[in-house]
Amino acid sequence: MLQSTAIAQVYLEKLPILGAEGGAVLPLYKPGTAMHSYLEEKKIHLVEIYFSEIEAHAVKAWKRHRLQQGLFCVPRGLLRLVLYDTRPKSPTYGRVASFSLGRPDKYCVLTMPPMIWYGLACEGETPALLCNCIDRPHDPKECETLPKDTDQIPYSFSNISQ
Amino acid sequence: MLQSTAIAQVYLEKLPILGAEGGAVLPLYKPGTAMHSYLEEKKIHLVEIYFSEIEAHAVKAWKRHRLQQGLFCVPRGLLRLVLYDTRPKSPTYGRVASFSLGRPDKYCVLTMPPMIWYGLACEGETPALLCNCIDRPHDPKECETLPKDTDQIPYSFSNISQ
Repeated sequence: MLQSTAIAQVYLEKLPILGAEGGAVLPLYKPGTAMHSYLEEKKIHLVEIYFSEIEAHAVKAWKRHRLQQGLFCVPRGLLRLVLYDTRPKSPTYGRVASFSLGRPDKYCVLTMPPMIWYGLACEGETPALLCNCIDRPHDPKECETLPKDTDQIPYSFSNISQ
Repeated sequence: MLQSTAIAQVYLEKLPILGAEGGAVLPLYKPGTAMHSYLEEKKIHLVEIYFSEIEAHAVKAWKRHRLQQGLFCVPRGLLRLVLYDTRPKSPTYGRVASFSLGRPDKYCVLTMPPMIWYGLACEGETPALLCNCIDRPHDPKECETLPKDTDQIPYSFSNISQ
């Protein structure tokens, strides 16, 4: 089942971690899930996949896409994802929300619409791995960045020791 | 560029690991790559994604799909992938081949055709993570398994301490 979150159009679906001899199996995306139905309904087609590793105690922030939509999943480690909604027509315009994504209890997929600033911080002592499935080829021209200590976003990563 | 391997129709493409502040970025699948062109040409459409973790010193073996095709990638750790070609018409019928896939020097994507037995072993002291993108929804009915110490496959994982 898709869950609404504090940010409009950011949905998440909890996923099972399947125990298996030698190591767990973790589904990310599959026909029959609520997330698959949602993306089909919205005609969002995933065409590119990449990983972004966040080292222990590291922060990667901030980034905003004008067009690109993503599907986030954290198959290793635990990640803090912070969002700042700057979509003028959004019912959650101006809101900041923080999510923990990853192992062992928060394994899920999460939709990442365009025009939302996002930042990532590794929670825990092992690197976290973000898998991002996106709906268009990566294009640096449609991507904006701000430094992690910017005054333009009302959130501080200072409690992450670096 | 796609590289041929010791097993017919098993191709690999080396991928870059992009250094970035806070942690590396690792592309898996994207338009413009040789692997993307190959899958387009073969009309192989990836519809499902899952991860399989292989714990340090663990082995997951053996498995064979009758229909399912996959695209393997190892974004964390280092994995030994062993293949045994049992396709009667294959020019490499009966051949066993072993590959190291993963970090830091062997980051790549690899095509996994049906009717090849495969086994996975973690090389190294940290768990390895396999990402498998497949061309049809997972169906246990088209999948066969054998125990890792079977006599039917001329390969022994006994040098992996468990």
